[in-house]
Amino acid sequence: MPMKSMDDLFVHGLQDLYTAEKRILQSLPKMAKKVTTNELKQALERHKNETQEHVNRLEQVFKMIGQSPKGVQCKAIEGIIGEAQETMQEIEDEEVCDAAILADAQAVEHYEITRYGTLTTWAKELGHDDAANLLHQTLEEEKRTDEMLTKMAKQRVNKSAAA
Amino acid sequence: MPMKSMDDLFVHGLQDLYTAEKRILQSLPKMAKKVTTNELKQALERHKNETQEHVNRLEQVFKMIGQSPKGVQCKAIEGIIGEAQETMQEIEDEEVCDAAILADAQAVEHYEITRYGTLTTWAKELGHDDAANLLHQTLEEEKRTDEMLTKMAKQRVNKSAAA
Repeated sequence: MPMKSMDDLFVHGLQDLYTAEKRILQSLPKMAKKVTTNELKQALERHKNETQEHVNRLEQVFKMIGQSPKGVQCKAIEGIIGEAQETMQEIEDEEVCDAAILADAQAVEHYEITRYGTLTTWAKELGHDDAANLLHQTLEEEKRTDEMLTKMAKQRVNKSAAA
Repeated sequence: MPMKSMDDLFVHGLQDLYTAEKRILQSLPKMAKKVTTNELKQALERHKNETQEHVNRLEQVFKMIGQSPKGVQCKAIEGIIGEAQETMQEIEDEEVCDAAILADAQAVEHYEITRYGTLTTWAKELGHDDAANLLHQTLEEEKRTDEMLTKMAKQRVNKSAAA
């Protein structure tokens, strides 16, 4: 589909993110299964449920603008998750693997944060206020997940300092 | 190289980011050349100079930990920049293309923000305080660039609202 207007670009962005969210939904259980730290495992499992809700919200947004939910290839999330999978396969030590998975989960969150931020802004620009509200709600949840993961990563530093 | 320790993971992270920064350095002039908004063009050109400095800093960090600067494949940045290139080729309208490039530049920034955040934390955990300081300095610059791009994106909304 050629993109000629901001409307086309907005729809393309939604389709990119729809593919990304579904890909993340597939990969979160694999990451959760691999980690050994209980707190991180639970956080990834909780975030899987949130991600399902984010997929539902995107479907609502498609409906609001009179479009059917559809995905397009998302090279970015393929790359980010591809790196995460490689790392999980390559690392044998449990603690090191948990640190890597935590970092890769944050890379996933940051991709979502940037795209939801952009789509919220474009939705406002195009006058789709209801869509903007839904997208903003997901944006805030992705930010909270990232903050929680940052906190967990920093706890590791304090633990090392105390050791 | 098998990753058996947090030291190995830290070095691998540096190598991933070294490849990413060099790839970004190649792609920023292409993005700057394509955009028509002066403010965005100048911002991307300024960020190219900053990115060169970030490459230099990574080389210093490698030196600090007794390693030679080396890159590894970075699927994530390939995916993010691959998407950006496709978009630039597909969009003919100048204003729409500028909005897409701005969004893609933010996706690049967010990848860097997440990785520099992680590497700063790992450097502290491993007791590489000098390296942590340098990585943190770059992290703050990437955040500032992202904030500036967010401001530009929001100005478009205000312009639309006033039109």
